[in-house]
Amino acid sequence: MIIESHAHFTNAPAALDAYRGRQIQNLARPVPGKLTISDEQLSAALDKHIRRMDRLGITATILSPRASGMGHEFGDWRTSSYWAQVNNDLIARAVALHPGRLFGAAQLPQSPGVDPAMCIDELNRTVLELGFVGCLINPDVAGGGQPFTPSIGDPWWYPLYERMVELSVPGLLHASSTVNPALHLNGSHYTNVDSSAFFELLWTDVLNDIPGLNLIVPHGGGGAPFHFNRIRSLLLGAGLPPLETKLERIYFDTAVYDRDSMEMVLRKMGVDNVLYAAEPFGTAKNVDPDTGVPFDETIGFITGVPWLTAEDSEKILSGNARRIYPRLRIET
Amino acid sequence: MIIESHAHFTNAPAALDAYRGRQIQNLARPVPGKLTISDEQLSAALDKHIRRMDRLGITATILSPRASGMGHEFGDWRTSSYWAQVNNDLIARAVALHPGRLFGAAQLPQSPGVDPAMCIDELNRTVLELGFVGCLINPDVAGGGQPFTPSIGDPWWYPLYERMVELSVPGLLHASSTVNPALHLNGSHYTNVDSSAFFELLWTDVLNDIPGLNLIVPHGGGGAPFHFNRIRSLLLGAGLPPLETKLERIYFDTAVYDRDSMEMVLRKMGVDNVLYAAEPFGTAKNVDPDTGVPFDETIGFITGVPWLTAEDSEKILSGNARRIYPRLRIET
Repeated sequence: MIIESHAHFTNAPAALDAYRGRQIQNLARPVPGKLTISDEQLSAALDKHIRRMDRLGITATILSPRASGMGHEFGDWRTSSYWAQVNNDLIARAVALHPGRLFGAAQLPQSPGVDPAMCIDELNRTVLELGFVGCLINPDVAGGGQPFTPSIGDPWWYPLYERMVELSVPGLLHASSTVNPALHLNGSHYTNVDSSAFFELLWTDVLNDIPGLNLIVPHGGGGAPFHFNRIRSLLLGAGLPPLETKLERIYFDTAVYDRDSMEMVLRKMGVDNVLYAAEPFGTAKNVDPDTGVPFDETIGFITGVPWLTAEDSEKILSGNARRIYPRLRIET
Repeated sequence: MIIESHAHFTNAPAALDAYRGRQIQNLARPVPGKLTISDEQLSAALDKHIRRMDRLGITATILSPRASGMGHEFGDWRTSSYWAQVNNDLIARAVALHPGRLFGAAQLPQSPGVDPAMCIDELNRTVLELGFVGCLINPDVAGGGQPFTPSIGDPWWYPLYERMVELSVPGLLHASSTVNPALHLNGSHYTNVDSSAFFELLWTDVLNDIPGLNLIVPHGGGGAPFHFNRIRSLLLGAGLPPLETKLERIYFDTAVYDRDSMEMVLRKMGVDNVLYAAEPFGTAKNVDPDTGVPFDETIGFITGVPWLTAEDSEKILSGNARRIYPRLRIET
């Protein structure tokens, strides 16, 4: 079984962005969204996801709103709240069209400087009413601007984390847009936020303080596997527990697009903590002219690793996802 | 021959930081520094560098001020200017104590929002009067704060770049401190800035616009080798020239501390563009308990790569540095 653990609805019908466009033009007066999207339109937009799943043998996909679109830096909490609601409602409709194949992960109404506890109502709604299995957490709420967001390991986040544990919902640490002109959304910002969030999980006490909290660092952990000994040296120099002991509590996904990088993720981060993901459709949707295959078709990078057992591959492709997403239930 | 292309004077005598402490306490009234450091004190501080060079067979080291200490976000241009001067003067004295073994790379008086052309006087002074061979360029002048620094590929930088070309001086793209509480200086900020600067070199026209400009992305290119196909896909999707053609014009150093990461840098970035560096003494100075050897002793990671020819190793260990640092002249 294969579970795509990290996919975004990047090609939602235009009515979604049209609402957002009007919302941003009237930031001072946010109003709830009412999208006019028919089931036929929605189904047509989802078709490429479903066809890809069929073609690659993917049983289930955890689908979340477009990450760049979350744009938590705009407006206030009401802005983010209404925007999260329309996105999550649309994901819920998508899931309802493909029960057992699509599962929802929530966008949260994060807003710069606003207590993460203010995300709990929407987390409750999406999990308990809409049946979502996970959520996205943006570690850099103002997109590199100010107010700065406290470290992802700071107790500022704990009320949200505690509710996630109660609900048995893991969090995918995923940045949204950036206001810094020296950063490129897909080319540097996302993976930089991965790297910094990962390091904060090592450098702080959060994983001890919140037992049961499951956080996933996407895109292979940013640069973490590549800078493994750099990180080990820093932890040693600070007298902190060795990296290896912390890794048991942190999850990663495989959204990297090189065979050797994939192997590096699996070897260094461990087969028990890595979830298959290729993050369709986005950064890596283009066809590699060297192979004629889209960059994001990486399942063979996992099954082709010679030192992985069949059991290891099964964990990476689905078992680990089923373990840390307990609400994701697949009839077998 | 081995050239350490990236080392910082991280253990300078306390008089240096004492001046800086007083300077920051009186930001409104910056005054030039006059350090009282004897040759004996300076020599004692340099001793560990020289002993390490002798022990590892390193012929020459390009020494620059402590990167975290540059702190360009503090004060105004005068603050950065006086602070760069005392640092560079101290490096010049260090070089004079070990002629032919140490070579200087300059800290520049960058300051948030200030035209990089304002760095040219200090660049001229350090190169033409003090005999320096290179300089550090901080791509994120306000350390993640505001005003944001334009992309390293933005024409804003061109006057400085043009003068670097005239002087035959390359630039090591190296961040300094950060004001963002979610970033860790050595654990994420430096390598994140590497990754974002590298991507900007691909995404902009700077390398075409300034022929002869040589920029070095340290720490193995941040996360670039690990995210190679992610980057390739983005360039393809944008209709930009393929990554491989851009790589011919960008340099990297080997300041990574894993054998497999080192091989990944060399394989993907190419043996003609990578300069040996272990960045003593800093992040990786600690001893790896698994090997009993400091993390930053990585020369064997290069000489041990089976597919490298002797000529390749020579390029990486010294030839490439001698080529792009033409002012670094070693008697042989």
